[in-house]
Amino acid sequence: MPDKRPFDVLNGALNNTVIVGLKGGTELRGIMVSYDVHMNLVLEKAEQLKDGEVKRGIGTVLVRGDSVIYISPS
Amino acid sequence: MPDKRPFDVLNGALNNTVIVGLKGGTELRGIMVSYDVHMNLVLEKAEQLKDGEVKRGIGTVLVRGDSVIYISPS
Amino acid sequence: MPDKRPFDVLNGALNNTVIVGLKGGTELRGIMVSYDVHMNLVLEKAEQLKDGEVKRGIGTVLVRGDSVIYISPS
Amino acid sequence: MPDKRPFDVLNGALNNTVIVGLKGGTELRGIMVSYDVHMNLVLEKAEQLKDGEVKRGIGTVLVRGDSVIYISPS
Amino acid sequence: MPDKRPFDVLNGALNNTVIVGLKGGTELRGIMVSYDVHMNLVLEKAEQLKDGEVKRGIGTVLVRGDSVIYISPS
Amino acid sequence: MPDKRPFDVLNGALNNTVIVGLKGGTELRGIMVSYDVHMNLVLEKAEQLKDGEVKRGIGTVLVRGDSVIYISPS
Amino acid sequence: MPDKRPFDVLNGALNNTVIVGLKGGTELRGIMVSYDVHMNLVLEKAEQLKDGEVKRGIGTVLVRGDSVIYISPS
Repeated sequence: MPDKRPFDVLNGALNNTVIVGLKGGTELRGIMVSYDVHMNLVLEKAEQLKDGEVKRGIGTVLVRGDSVIYISPS
Repeated sequence: MPDKRPFDVLNGALNNTVIVGLKGGTELRGIMVSYDVHMNLVLEKAEQLKDGEVKRGIGTVLVRGDSVIYISPS
Repeated sequence: MPDKRPFDVLNGALNNTVIVGLKGGTELRGIMVSYDVHMNLVLEKAEQLKDGEVKRGIGTVLVRGDSVIYISPS
Repeated sequence: MPDKRPFDVLNGALNNTVIVGLKGGTELRGIMVSYDVHMNLVLEKAEQLKDGEVKRGIGTVLVRGDSVIYISPS
Repeated sequence: MPDKRPFDVLNGALNNTVIVGLKGGTELRGIMVSYDVHMNLVLEKAEQLKDGEVKRGIGTVLVRGDSVIYISPS
Repeated sequence: MPDKRPFDVLNGALNNTVIVGLKGGTELRGIMVSYDVHMNLVLEKAEQLKDGEVKRGIGTVLVRGDSVIYISPS
Repeated sequence: MPDKRPFDVLNGALNNTVIVGLKGGTELRGIMVSYDVHMNLVLEKAEQLKDGEVKRGIGTVLVRGDSVIYISPS
């Protein structure tokens, strides 16, 4: 096993901007202020993206972990 | 782990208006009056949204947790 | 945790008319005469709805809990 | 909890005609001769329906419980 | 519980031709030579069907149980 | 239970060419060099197929078991 | 059981470029720097592919294991 495990990436991204890809094709971008072991996430100042463009602002949002496909720190 | 965990956000949103995104693309907006550990939610004065516009009123609604994609307090 | 938990809503809706949203987009309306911990439900005098209009009557119907997206008491 | 629990409905429908709605939109109609705790079902003299019309006969069929959306006794 | 439980139907169909409906809409027809408790199945002399017509032969095939929607002995 | 159980088919196909059908409709063809109890598979000299024709070569590929619909040894 | 088990392939691909196929049809290509027992993966210098062409760069990305369909080392 390598040093930088998947949850280390989550931890390293705390309080930074991430892009989250969700089942169904939605992408959210926001500041990840918390997560738990189920990969439930809280984003602040979140925006919904469509083809990389901002579609609308949604402020604080709790994302259910089992809807997450990927999380990319910026 | 940070202080404001995902379920803290749920707790903080009690008795406030939230927007809930569901599998299949439906969005509901209403006052969240309860939740449980499965993220089952109860909304009151709920409305179904389509592209951010109110499609119809549905009053009280119990949302099954495993259908939830995201929850955004307003 | 608040007083009116999600299953309290189910219990309060017993023998009353509910609208149930199912995976795949189907909506059923009927009198909920029972449920269990898996959210399996029994509706009587049930009707299938499409865009809020009655599509057909289906009488008694057992709905499998893991197909339920939301339940709205009327 | 009420008297007529969801599995009571299954039991009461034994050896009677039921309509079963499946994930993916298929409906089957047949005589339900058995079920188990997973809601696996056996139908005899089963027919596949489309918009309420018989599409084809399929005789005996074992339906996997986790594909079931609803079961309606006739 | 009735005598002919769901897995009795599977057992009774051993070494006989069955039609298997799969998630995603594919149908296979072949001789079922084995199964296990997960409803994993082995078909021999299997053919893929489309609208009831043979689309192609695929010989021996192992079908993963959680992809199965229904199994119909012929 | 018959002699040739589902996992016996997997074992018998080791180091032989198999076609694997995946959720979402993709088919892969390659030499299956290993598997585990979750039906995770490793194929070598794998190719992606579309309507039975080779779409592209992908070399070695690890297939996640819960994405597998069927596995057909050639 | 053969020597080169599925997770051996993951381990052998560490710090090498892989292509990851995800539910919903997205493909990512990047350097896999870690994984865990759930097949959660971390890719660096990742790019999203469409029909084998680079659609956009996404840098570091954590991929949730249960979204993975296949992983192909290059």
